[in-house]
Amino acid sequence: MRTLQVELGERSYPIHIGPGLLKRAELIKPHIHGKTTVVVSNETVAPLYLEAVHELIDKDRNTDIILPDGEAYKTAETLGNIYTGMLEAHCDRKTTLLALGGGVVGDVAGFASASYQRGINFIQIPTTLLAMVDSSVGGKTGINHPLGKNMIGAFHQPQCVLIDTNTLNTLDDRQLSAGIAEVIKYGYINDPEFIDWLNQNMDKLLEREPEALAYAIYRSCQHKAEIVAADEKEAGQRALLNLGHTFGHAIETGMGYGKWLHGEAIAAGMVMAAELSREHGWIDDADVEAMRALIAKARLPVDPPAEISPQRFEKLMSIDKKVQDGVLHLVLMKAIGDSVVTSEFDPDLLKKVLARDVRR
Amino acid sequence: MRTLQVELGERSYPIHIGPGLLKRAELIKPHIHGKTTVVVSNETVAPLYLEAVHELIDKDRNTDIILPDGEAYKTAETLGNIYTGMLEAHCDRKTTLLALGGGVVGDVAGFASASYQRGINFIQIPTTLLAMVDSSVGGKTGINHPLGKNMIGAFHQPQCVLIDTNTLNTLDDRQLSAGIAEVIKYGYINDPEFIDWLNQNMDKLLEREPEALAYAIYRSCQHKAEIVAADEKEAGQRALLNLGHTFGHAIETGMGYGKWLHGEAIAAGMVMAAELSREHGWIDDADVEAMRALIAKARLPVDPPAEISPQRFEKLMSIDKKVQDGVLHLVLMKAIGDSVVTSEFDPDLLKKVLARDVRR
Repeated sequence: MRTLQVELGERSYPIHIGPGLLKRAELIKPHIHGKTTVVVSNETVAPLYLEAVHELIDKDRNTDIILPDGEAYKTAETLGNIYTGMLEAHCDRKTTLLALGGGVVGDVAGFASASYQRGINFIQIPTTLLAMVDSSVGGKTGINHPLGKNMIGAFHQPQCVLIDTNTLNTLDDRQLSAGIAEVIKYGYINDPEFIDWLNQNMDKLLEREPEALAYAIYRSCQHKAEIVAADEKEAGQRALLNLGHTFGHAIETGMGYGKWLHGEAIAAGMVMAAELSREHGWIDDADVEAMRALIAKARLPVDPPAEISPQRFEKLMSIDKKVQDGVLHLVLMKAIGDSVVTSEFDPDLLKKVLARDVRR
Repeated sequence: MRTLQVELGERSYPIHIGPGLLKRAELIKPHIHGKTTVVVSNETVAPLYLEAVHELIDKDRNTDIILPDGEAYKTAETLGNIYTGMLEAHCDRKTTLLALGGGVVGDVAGFASASYQRGINFIQIPTTLLAMVDSSVGGKTGINHPLGKNMIGAFHQPQCVLIDTNTLNTLDDRQLSAGIAEVIKYGYINDPEFIDWLNQNMDKLLEREPEALAYAIYRSCQHKAEIVAADEKEAGQRALLNLGHTFGHAIETGMGYGKWLHGEAIAAGMVMAAELSREHGWIDDADVEAMRALIAKARLPVDPPAEISPQRFEKLMSIDKKVQDGVLHLVLMKAIGDSVVTSEFDPDLLKKVLARDVRR
């Protein structure tokens, strides 16, 4: 087992990574302060792992809330159903919530725990690669709004993140690839050495070689923990974690939540960020080609869907959270493995990228 | 003008109290960091003061969101309407929200600002006595759930609280009395001297004598600021502010939100807390009688509504936020002006009070 610490003063917490951790009650127990718990999971994950989680807690004082599966359910309605379930079960301020599932479960259950009676403790038990390397760490919680992704939410740090890498064995190939998109992202933000490692080990990740997966998760969480510790509320550098996300969110919203997986949208979004960087002359054709090759090898899309017109794409991007005082900020690449948050890009070049008027 | 500071480290903020402050743009300007604003108000308050608020800000970069008036609208639906209005207006993370109105506007708009894009700045401009002395100070924000009052929300401190005491001139008598209930509460928590002052000055408050009102608001805010600074997230003594509230919330929920004003329910709730304290022998009959007399003089109810059966009352109290690990905590009086938060009360005596089997 590997353990990392997210350093946030009195809100610091551990991330435990390894096989079989769902059998290690001693890792969870110190983080359950009250007597009652609620496990929030979904229809896909619950049949696989809910029983194991019950063994970690006092199941006589626990309530399960099982959500439908999918990004389409990351809504105010689902959130309301969690509140109702918790109120009916008489959950109180000392109740600990355990989020068992992928990014959607973690985000919506995390926001429920941030807002139920103005905030209760929660524990993240991510079961998808994407949730393990990204959404379960760092305290971003929230839901989608019909007008924009992740527009409603809170910063609310978990007490602990428990990553049992064995749960990846039940993940389907498409979800695995979607998670790899976020792993690749860390390389392009600021770790060119990790890009090399990924180029050499992509086959192993796709074959679910346990040690390769564990290493990729550990290195990704290490990056995330470091960035979150330096900038919890995203006043500055945390925004780097959004590489590919402003483009990606527009794809997700434009296509309707759930049609493209988050990781797939982010994959295509990273390529668009690279293309825009290349149009500014910051990186070259070969860099973009190498990125496209790595992303394609991970079985991820390298181009946005043709269904979204350039005009609509631009409009969707204008309501991104990276807009400040009306100015769009993007994460772009000054060099490979050296990304920056900037509003200083040429809007005509952005239009060119959105119109797919780019070299291949 | 009087100014108080709520001391919360980097989240500290001023409370300005005085007549005509809605004309003093210099008090607001330092707390608006971005270029855009949104004013959330209601149908009753907006016609009276919205124009004055527009003069304090850049009204060309402002959006107004006007809610229906009343506790019945402190709901997830209203919250959703605020989000939609803000997204349609392209509000971003740097937008400042100004909450102009009573406790409902402050609570729901405050929670909108806590959760819009994971949190934006906001300013409280309370226009009811109740909001001035209680809900606008301290960062508690939230909405009601059909199963319980204030069950959903967040701690989110404002940048500034601007109390223009002139706005009390348009408040109706019933709302004024409801606010006085919370003023009286501070006396009974820990300020017996203030109880004496209130006994001597109640007529002046009801006649809206400006200096008496300003003093009562100042002294109330002083108490609240001190308690909040010592215990922002209600780990301990902040719960004292809920004197009368567990009983009161049960009245509000039991009667249907909006039927009894919050302050009215709290007034009757305080008497019930006093009665239960008297049943334990901590205070005597004369203390309860004096309290009933002061509350009656403020034109507030001294008994709960007969419509709620003792059984239903008990059930409603069991989902209060003061329940921890299944144990109900109440604010009771060890002596007049010396309240405590305790779970050590005799449940049979509570039943007696709920059954109205009490001496008068």
